[in-house]
Amino acid sequence: MAASEYSLRRALVEKQSSIESQGNAVRALKASNAVKADVDEAIEKLNALKLEKSSIEKQLQAAVSGNPDGSVNKEAFRQAVVNTLERRLFFIPSFKIYRGVAGLYDYGPPGCAVKSNVLAFWRQHFVLEENMLEVDCPCVTPEVVLKASGHVDKFTDLMVKDEKTGTCYRADHLLKDFCNEKIQKDLSISAEKAAELKHVLAVLDDLSAEELGAKIKEYGITAPDTKNPLSDPYPFNLMFQTSIGPSGLSPGYMRPETAQGIFVNFKDLYYYNGNKLPFAAAQIGQAFRNEISPRQGLLRVREFTLAEIEHFVDPEDKSHPKYSEVADLEFLMFPREQQVSGQSAKKIRLGEAVSKGIVNNETLGYFIGRVYLFLIHLGIDKDRLRFRQHLANEMAHYAADCWDAEIESSYGWIECVGIADRSAYDLRAHTDKSGVPLVAHEKFSEPKEVEKLVIAPVKKELGLSFKGNQKKVVEALEAMNEKEALDMKSSLETKGEVEFYVCTLGENVTIKKSMVSISKEKKKEHQRTFTPSVIEPSFGIGRIIYCLYEHSFYMRSSKAGDEQQNVFRFPPLVAPIKCTVFPLVQNQQYEDVAKIISKSLTAAGISHKIDITGTSIGKRYARTDELGVPFAITVDSTSSVTIRERDSKDQIRVNVEEAASVVKSVTDGHTTWADAWANFPHHSSGSVED
Amino acid sequence: MAASEYSLRRALVEKQSSIESQGNAVRALKASNAVKADVDEAIEKLNALKLEKSSIEKQLQAAVSGNPDGSVNKEAFRQAVVNTLERRLFFIPSFKIYRGVAGLYDYGPPGCAVKSNVLAFWRQHFVLEENMLEVDCPCVTPEVVLKASGHVDKFTDLMVKDEKTGTCYRADHLLKDFCNEKIQKDLSISAEKAAELKHVLAVLDDLSAEELGAKIKEYGITAPDTKNPLSDPYPFNLMFQTSIGPSGLSPGYMRPETAQGIFVNFKDLYYYNGNKLPFAAAQIGQAFRNEISPRQGLLRVREFTLAEIEHFVDPEDKSHPKYSEVADLEFLMFPREQQVSGQSAKKIRLGEAVSKGIVNNETLGYFIGRVYLFLIHLGIDKDRLRFRQHLANEMAHYAADCWDAEIESSYGWIECVGIADRSAYDLRAHTDKSGVPLVAHEKFSEPKEVEKLVIAPVKKELGLSFKGNQKKVVEALEAMNEKEALDMKSSLETKGEVEFYVCTLGENVTIKKSMVSISKEKKKEHQRTFTPSVIEPSFGIGRIIYCLYEHSFYMRSSKAGDEQQNVFRFPPLVAPIKCTVFPLVQNQQYEDVAKIISKSLTAAGISHKIDITGTSIGKRYARTDELGVPFAITVDSTSSVTIRERDSKDQIRVNVEEAASVVKSVTDGHTTWADAWANFPHHSSGSVED
Repeated sequence: MAASEYSLRRALVEKQSSIESQGNAVRALKASNAVKADVDEAIEKLNALKLEKSSIEKQLQAAVSGNPDGSVNKEAFRQAVVNTLERRLFFIPSFKIYRGVAGLYDYGPPGCAVKSNVLAFWRQHFVLEENMLEVDCPCVTPEVVLKASGHVDKFTDLMVKDEKTGTCYRADHLLKDFCNEKIQKDLSISAEKAAELKHVLAVLDDLSAEELGAKIKEYGITAPDTKNPLSDPYPFNLMFQTSIGPSGLSPGYMRPETAQGIFVNFKDLYYYNGNKLPFAAAQIGQAFRNEISPRQGLLRVREFTLAEIEHFVDPEDKSHPKYSEVADLEFLMFPREQQVSGQSAKKIRLGEAVSKGIVNNETLGYFIGRVYLFLIHLGIDKDRLRFRQHLANEMAHYAADCWDAEIESSYGWIECVGIADRSAYDLRAHTDKSGVPLVAHEKFSEPKEVEKLVIAPVKKELGLSFKGNQKKVVEALEAMNEKEALDMKSSLETKGEVEFYVCTLGENVTIKKSMVSISKEKKKEHQRTFTPSVIEPSFGIGRIIYCLYEHSFYMRSSKAGDEQQNVFRFPPLVAPIKCTVFPLVQNQQYEDVAKIISKSLTAAGISHKIDITGTSIGKRYARTDELGVPFAITVDSTSSVTIRERDSKDQIRVNVEEAASVVKSVTDGHTTWADAWANFPHHSSGSVED
Repeated sequence: MAASEYSLRRALVEKQSSIESQGNAVRALKASNAVKADVDEAIEKLNALKLEKSSIEKQLQAAVSGNPDGSVNKEAFRQAVVNTLERRLFFIPSFKIYRGVAGLYDYGPPGCAVKSNVLAFWRQHFVLEENMLEVDCPCVTPEVVLKASGHVDKFTDLMVKDEKTGTCYRADHLLKDFCNEKIQKDLSISAEKAAELKHVLAVLDDLSAEELGAKIKEYGITAPDTKNPLSDPYPFNLMFQTSIGPSGLSPGYMRPETAQGIFVNFKDLYYYNGNKLPFAAAQIGQAFRNEISPRQGLLRVREFTLAEIEHFVDPEDKSHPKYSEVADLEFLMFPREQQVSGQSAKKIRLGEAVSKGIVNNETLGYFIGRVYLFLIHLGIDKDRLRFRQHLANEMAHYAADCWDAEIESSYGWIECVGIADRSAYDLRAHTDKSGVPLVAHEKFSEPKEVEKLVIAPVKKELGLSFKGNQKKVVEALEAMNEKEALDMKSSLETKGEVEFYVCTLGENVTIKKSMVSISKEKKKEHQRTFTPSVIEPSFGIGRIIYCLYEHSFYMRSSKAGDEQQNVFRFPPLVAPIKCTVFPLVQNQQYEDVAKIISKSLTAAGISHKIDITGTSIGKRYARTDELGVPFAITVDSTSSVTIRERDSKDQIRVNVEEAASVVKSVTDGHTTWADAWANFPHHSSGSVED
């Protein structure tokens, strides 16, 4: 695609220049009063060139905007989904009567039920299944914790201000918008210019404040609303800041992630787990991100629910006992190499990815597999789900490997779960800052003999030579790593003395043989002490739910064909309500039966709704299809009722006493609708639905 | 008690003065060289008086500190509970490795499980059972919302500062501590002084900043740590403040309650409910309160989980369709009148309290009953639970009635649930501030004829007389209420003119008959528009859980009698783990059976733990008793196993295949342990437990 775009841009420029020369030729012919036939021929040629140019422009247009029809359809599809979601109160812009706040949304009743189903399943699938230690820590977090984690210094976006109005923008967004706009709408730019803009887009995340500022200046980008000049970019910290207690002396932040609450508790949790590794801790809770100017609706918000797992493991043994249970799963993976070489995601067997070293280790692989199963069970379309490996420049320097579960939506591929092997970084950072060692021990079954490097400075000799600097020299000698020390040892043995750089003094000193003894000694050790690695699957619950909405939504014509009806094909697991109960017509006897069934459903723990309004049954079905309710029980006699399945619209007939248990069995996943369809008489609805 | 304390204080003062005069008498005898027998007699009398004084002091001491032994026991009991909770990670002081933050606590694994069980039951008992509309709104809230609710102006505590160090204290706490200390420890104060201090304690919550400051000055109260002088009291807002977005121009707060998120959504929720009343909305979420200096451990925290219900109802019809289901409940109630007249809480049938008007209305009564059932099911001791009505001075001016579910703990009676009829206050406040009418409509089945007052100012006449002031006079006339208008009408008819005060002009004007027409006209109305009343049960989840810990905790001797063992008698509903599975001895066959049972338990959705450590079975029981695990399955053969109940320590023997289903049936509440005990052979444990 990129190559074809490049050649199209070149062709366009060439065609333009042909048109210009042909235009000149026409004008010259006219000026020289050439014969009409010649002039006509030249004009015809010019028009042909113009037609060719227009055809190239169309091709280029198609090339740069992907599939232009597709993109229009995507917008329209999204609008249909979002309209339905908002009209049926899956979500509500928060504080709407006060004109709302960008990036804050409420879950209305059905949205709240979906969220609570997703979280219950998350707990079942991860916490219970793996015996994880679930904790629940506050959102308010003192500064010292987020200083240690790096968030106070580095959790920033680069911001520019409209120099006249003070309105704030994300610097990278402005540059991104400029480049995209230019590439997609300005067909006159040269192929080289287009390539340059594409390169800027590719490296956007890596640009420093200075580089971003330079590009903004170079391209003459101004404030989108006013066209005023913009300030230089500067970092804005994305944490909501507050103050703990009344003194004003204890700064705090609303946590940007839940993970830190787990890390600081490592010591207690390790003890709780019988001082054994591996184990995982988990947390579900609110996190906050004070976006500069939120875009992308429900995907980019200022407050959101995270579900995070921190799996602590011995860095020397990242195997997983249940790995074999997921090794045969096969799904779309997008390894680093495929991305760099311009290929696309492809189906890989997880076990192969791990054994080939594409995925760093078994435990990471196990969680990738479990995340895949989790998302598929919720109803995410497996063909629009891929696991993308972070490129080297995306990954923190300490991370061993990192994969994002990305779900394709109308906004493109959206990162919904991050699964990272963060090595020992977090526990080390809090150990350093707090002084409390967050480490694990491996007791040896019998003591091990180990060779240890022993550096013994001879303080008396050093004191005689270096006087007041003695202490600094001693510290520098003791701080040598094994290689440095052994090099010094051999130099001292051969030459008797050696030059040694003491960084705290900022100069070289001469170390003589008598000043230090370096040796390797054998010692017995009873245990090994180490900082565990942490493998972190982190779930953006709101994003998963939004993508699920898009993957579940479809429209179908009413039977009469006169209107489009909206349906969410939620699996029973996530459906906000599992079942509705309707008396076919308003009638006391039918209502009584409906109430009896409702009671059995409540007793069986099936969330449902009883609707005794006189609305037509077709309208009632349409209304609940739009909420994604999978089953509807219609009471049309006092002895038996029908059960209708949402997507097939098929109906079976069951006895009143059985109704609740049939629905329970299918919604709990013990049987399927196909089983029910096979076991019960079918009911033909006639024209009831419309 | 108060009366006896009063007379004891008087007796003490009298005795002291008798001692003084007797002392003088002794000195006088000695000075006059009286005979030894007389002196001895006088001294003997003095000593007798001193003995009597000492006896009165002891009685007074006992009187003022309630039951002094009891209070020591309470402290010791609390310490035992809290130690167990902290050791077993039910809770963890947040950010402990950084020395923590006062008023912030984590739920560790078992605490988190208890919380999640309590919330799941809350959802079942309230949201599902009553078809409530659950919503989920952000914690970050823009200022305008909390301005409307009154929190920005009134959610404050009075604070004083140490004038030298700047340390902050809650003014009422200092005054309270001073009064309590004086009453309990200083036996020399007069009965009148003691009565005064008690009065101060009684009215503490009603004191203004000035009154509090005056008392602090009068009593010479200084900073507790430094004895430095204190500033005057001033209000400190208890909300955590922050800033939304990067501009610094949009102040926001972390919500102090979840209720406002529901109120601002009233219009959408009413529509979602088919524009029908009554309906209830519910929300579970974090709330924040930036305490000046948190005390009372887990009960007074800076961040907590609230579960709130807002039940919207027609103010003219506060009946409840399911009221009869709770009317026969009988439990401890503490109506206003009993409190004022110094009586104590007593058992009242809920139906009686409602019918006698002690509880304002049926819906309020219904929720009081449902809250009672909720708390009892969780395991709260019904003899340490009372519903206390707010006194007139505790209640907001707009509230119709308010009751707190108070649970007795080692800290005294703790407010855990507030159940208030807040009338139309909240919806009106947001209507006024936002301009969006948050109202409901009652459609009449047929149009109603109503008499309406019509005030029609004759603008031309008024203009001639009042010129530029005409508009203000017109507005004042139109703003008259019915009585004022009818009075004016009759005056105009009898006298032809009337003096009328126009507040916007600040003066009287003369209104003549020609200037206004006042009449009552009949109109047809099709609906009634009104602001619904809201009845709000609001649950402090953390407080309920803490009280539940205290009510569930007990200690018992080990069989050998050599140590005290801790037990939490949680009902299966809230127990963090429902069941443990132990092989009796380390043995591959037993372990295999344990794993088979574990799989069945997982499939049945029963949270459990398998323990294959070699620890003695007695120790393993003790360990899980301390976590409140209700059942333990011990594998001591490959065909059958024992199930032990935590509190009775009774054991039954069941087949391996039945084990999971027996435990499931009892933990789900479908059967009881007594049923199981009746149906299965008993197992005698011998000396296994110790």
